Amino acid sequence: MIQKTIILVFTGLLSLGAAAQKEDSITIKNIADNVLIHGTAYENLRKICKKIGPRLSGSIQAQKAVAATTKMLKDAGADTVYLQPCMVPHWVRGAKEVGYINLPNGSKYQLNLCSLGNSEGTGLKGISAPIVQVNNFAELSQLGKTGVQGKIVFFNFEMNPTYIATFNAYGESGRSRTAGPSLAASYGAAGVLVRSLASNFDDYPHTGVTIYNDSFPKIPAVAISTNNAIWLTKQLSKGQALTAYFKNTCTMLPDEPSFNVVGEIRGSTLPNEIITVGGHLDSWDLAEGAQDDGAGCVQSIEVIRAFKATGIRPLRTLRAVMFMNEENGGRGGDKYLELALLNKENHFFALESDAGGFSPRGFSLEMSEEKINKIKQWKNLFYPYGVYDFSASGSGSDVGPLKVTGAALAGLRPDSQRYFDVHHAASDVFENVSRRELHMGALNMAALIYLVDKYGL
Amino acid sequence: MIQKTIILVFTGLLSLGAAAQKEDSITIKNIADNVLIHGTAYENLRKICKKIGPRLSGSIQAQKAVAATTKMLKDAGADTVYLQPCMVPHWVRGAKEVGYINLPNGSKYQLNLCSLGNSEGTGLKGISAPIVQVNNFAELSQLGKTGVQGKIVFFNFEMNPTYIATFNAYGESGRSRTAGPSLAASYGAAGVLVRSLASNFDDYPHTGVTIYNDSFPKIPAVAISTNNAIWLTKQLSKGQALTAYFKNTCTMLPDEPSFNVVGEIRGSTLPNEIITVGGHLDSWDLAEGAQDDGAGCVQSIEVIRAFKATGIRPLRTLRAVMFMNEENGGRGGDKYLELALLNKENHFFALESDAGGFSPRGFSLEMSEEKINKIKQWKNLFYPYGVYDFSASGSGSDVGPLKVTGAALAGLRPDSQRYFDVHHAASDVFENVSRRELHMGALNMAALIYLVDKYGL
Repeated sequence: MIQKTIILVFTGLLSLGAAAQKEDSITIKNIADNVLIHGTAYENLRKICKKIGPRLSGSIQAQKAVAATTKMLKDAGADTVYLQPCMVPHWVRGAKEVGYINLPNGSKYQLNLCSLGNSEGTGLKGISAPIVQVNNFAELSQLGKTGVQGKIVFFNFEMNPTYIATFNAYGESGRSRTAGPSLAASYGAAGVLVRSLASNFDDYPHTGVTIYNDSFPKIPAVAISTNNAIWLTKQLSKGQALTAYFKNTCTMLPDEPSFNVVGEIRGSTLPNEIITVGGHLDSWDLAEGAQDDGAGCVQSIEVIRAFKATGIRPLRTLRAVMFMNEENGGRGGDKYLELALLNKENHFFALESDAGGFSPRGFSLEMSEEKINKIKQWKNLFYPYGVYDFSASGSGSDVGPLKVTGAALAGLRPDSQRYFDVHHAASDVFENVSRRELHMGALNMAALIYLVDKYGL
Repeated sequence: MIQKTIILVFTGLLSLGAAAQKEDSITIKNIADNVLIHGTAYENLRKICKKIGPRLSGSIQAQKAVAATTKMLKDAGADTVYLQPCMVPHWVRGAKEVGYINLPNGSKYQLNLCSLGNSEGTGLKGISAPIVQVNNFAELSQLGKTGVQGKIVFFNFEMNPTYIATFNAYGESGRSRTAGPSLAASYGAAGVLVRSLASNFDDYPHTGVTIYNDSFPKIPAVAISTNNAIWLTKQLSKGQALTAYFKNTCTMLPDEPSFNVVGEIRGSTLPNEIITVGGHLDSWDLAEGAQDDGAGCVQSIEVIRAFKATGIRPLRTLRAVMFMNEENGGRGGDKYLELALLNKENHFFALESDAGGFSPRGFSLEMSEEKINKIKQWKNLFYPYGVYDFSASGSGSDVGPLKVTGAALAGLRPDSQRYFDVHHAASDVFENVSRRELHMGALNMAALIYLVDKYGL
């Protein structure tokens, strides 16, 4: 009798599970069909990229993007749309940078270069100094003060092409850009050239933030294109002593007021539990910020639109958030946490899309193993939509601060092969985004949120 | 004792399996690293696209591509490189097509159009006739002779955006292009406009072959851009009677001699068993044929290069084949089979890459369930390289004919979201190919061939 009961219960559970999966697969198909046919993410991205364009924190364009996405969230059907004021850094690049290498034959080799974000300027005269190349930080420390003092350090940290997840290569080599300038300054360097953090070989310089260490002088730092870096390495390998010149007039102005943009659908039964989905609204000043991260913004708005359009009323409150200032300060993400704590909000789950609008392959999960295992039970529901990889890993830099609240965090993980071709460069334009890939990301984000909201974690 | 023996044997098998997997994962990592660092597929593709360009069967460019890939195969390290002569159709587009819709207000709406491959021309006068729109073949048959006679049939078969595998949408709607013109002719139509088989909305017309049925008159057929098709549908939905005019001067010339290009590494122990890896060398005349299918050609050459560069000597003979005339005749694939049968070749396995050089996701397997299951046992070896999907499905149109030889067949399955944005259109250019994505495909192809060769099927 006991055995029979167990079998009955077990069969019952199985049927229930199968029925629920069936129901969920139908709901997810509704979401997918709706996004693929009626999705507005791509057209919203066109507006952000083509009508507004580059939108660095503190710029007029960033303010325009606040207004534009406010309207988009309303159009998507958010119950409430509001702004979260936050102060942001206001760095300006100044005039187009100029730079070259003085060749032994007296000619100049012009560089494709751009200042690193938050860099100091050289002043109008520019700087000229002998170049010393380092391929890693150990080489820099070996050179020491005697080898570096008064020189321009060329950090030639190639992104490791054998890493299949390009973000791992970025994480590794990226220290040349974030920490390199101050490290070079600690040995008395006059300035820094950084090989662009790019996975392809072309003429675009890629910017990105550098983080000055207050203990050392803030020396000017620029990125040069990968083609320039390859050329320069070749020249230096001949044993020639070369000098570089560059001039940039960038400067850090006083902080400016700005905003996170928030659109909500109020939860039907657990309105005080909050699910956040977001991307960041600011971009570098050189780029339209299409993949980084206009894509994540319009996908987050699309989640709201898809819920409304398919008649899904979330149990919890669903918030799409356009975070401000991810690129050179992270003030928007910090402000979001600050307000969450101040208002004693109950943050249940937060999902960020800030790895590009490419074809989605998975989600990185920053939460307990128990919760990860629960999400993995839904794998089969995502497989038809190209998503198969659910791994424990970081979520995103805007939702990351929420970790202290105990919220479960996640990040969309699209295919990463093309991201660093355009990341932080003038080539990050709308034309390099595929409508279908962008919408595939959005529909998978909506599906994950639907399941997390329905079943909890 | 029996139990113990079983356990021992089982443990032994497990260790053997684990050791072999470890060894294979190291070999595959060597292949991957070599391709990602030293791969030449991307630069080879640049030459094919930028130095040669469009290479329709029978054209001078197609002959140039034969010479160029012969050299590439030699440079890659093939032991032997040779040509397989085959006759190919020689269709020429003639002058740039002209076409427009006559609007009720007397103005003309110019169309972005191109002749379908193998289409007849209208002659210099062009044709002008009332338009009748059909969205499927049932609507055409309902209209019948009375509705169609003397008219220009507009086949508005939209690629179903809800199909995640875009090839399925292409297969379904593609009949408008392949079979539509002759079907329309069977009802007495004067000409055909086909909505481009494209997954995005833009101004490029997409060509592709139409297949005339000899029982009916060969009427001229052109593709119009998706934007044109959407506009035209809107106009016709107002109930307006509209006429279209178009002129194309394409014509089918006599067959021309051409070639498949073959490069081999002779097998060390089973040289009479042949493993084929290939793509097709011809492209449409409008496009550089970067994704379709320069990518498959250079990836196949890369497999040869990677084997040589990493010191893998295959047990079986490995052949990279550049098939000619996939686009409008399939003569190269047919010739390859014909010679295989004539020479009593033993074809063991054939892998085709003709779905674009996008980030790889899997392989479609056209072979017995037993063999499929054997390949699936290697899944874990591919997972680190983004390949997870091994499904029973068609292989490719060039290796497909080999099925009669009993060979196991397979096709590379890259991400399909962007393929039909550029397929058969002038936008299928080198710039739309990612170096990393292309090389990721090639390394996975090499890995599959390495395993199939080592373990058999």
